[in-house]
Amino acid sequence: MAISMYQASIPIFIRNLNNLRAILEKAAAHAEARKIDPAVLIGFRLYPDMFAFGKQVQVAADHAKNGAARLAGIEAPTSENTEKTFPELIERLQKTIEYLNTFKPEQIDGAEERQVTIKQGDSSILYTGQSFLLNRALPNLFFHIATAYDILRHNGVELGKADYLGKN
Amino acid sequence: MAISMYQASIPIFIRNLNNLRAILEKAAAHAEARKIDPAVLIGFRLYPDMFAFGKQVQVAADHAKNGAARLAGIEAPTSENTEKTFPELIERLQKTIEYLNTFKPEQIDGAEERQVTIKQGDSSILYTGQSFLLNRALPNLFFHIATAYDILRHNGVELGKADYLGKN
Repeated sequence: MAISMYQASIPIFIRNLNNLRAILEKAAAHAEARKIDPAVLIGFRLYPDMFAFGKQVQVAADHAKNGAARLAGIEAPTSENTEKTFPELIERLQKTIEYLNTFKPEQIDGAEERQVTIKQGDSSILYTGQSFLLNRALPNLFFHIATAYDILRHNGVELGKADYLGKN
Repeated sequence: MAISMYQASIPIFIRNLNNLRAILEKAAAHAEARKIDPAVLIGFRLYPDMFAFGKQVQVAADHAKNGAARLAGIEAPTSENTEKTFPELIERLQKTIEYLNTFKPEQIDGAEERQVTIKQGDSSILYTGQSFLLNRALPNLFFHIATAYDILRHNGVELGKADYLGKN
């Protein structure tokens, strides 16, 4: 009667990347209907030193992919971040979801106390699996999805909170 | 060897409201140093039909407060949303954190299957405690904190991801 590490990670990562994928599909449709160059939305930043929309999507995917791999104690495949269009970004999310679907509960459950080391420049941050998930992987995933959503809303794409939360 | 409902909720709510409180302190200092009317930041919206910054903070606090109460199966105290200044918004977060600190693990643990009903207009969404926490309370909390952060960054307040994630 508690939440397993798997339940609190892989299905949540997948659900939210699926929500982001649906948001991207709405953004692509909006750009087409309004004759907006998709590159304008994909390159849009809320501030000059913040990530552009496309990068927010790539980083969201990476937090899910790398988060899953770190919890399982395996190496994640690398990503090249070459996506420049909505279909390419959607494919990036789909491939990440396919990767996440390969994880089995037994790879993640029991990772509560597994040491996860995040390198930052010359130093490292040490987490337990549980604190990595709750204090880093999930907050980061939600941050980049929310910021991607905020960029699109700021540019007039018609989205609502239900798009962010997804279907229950 | 799994995450208890308490561990995945109350300390995470508190941690992230504390992070938001520190972000508000930086925003208040920024406004003072640059002689910016704080009301400009507090009333700023990324789009006309999105919540202004101050409301993002209030809603973040409410998702934590109401989330905790719903998981525990009790009524949360109501909030009047009268805050108009940074000190008032910071006090709102502090009071919410004090309220969250009153919850004991035994009130939350075992809530995985407790029914949580969210009214939306004429209909209701039914959640289990676990799906309410993972699919609604946490995503909403992170959404409003990230959006508050995005509004401040968009307005030139010097913040970094470390402010959002908080200290490990």
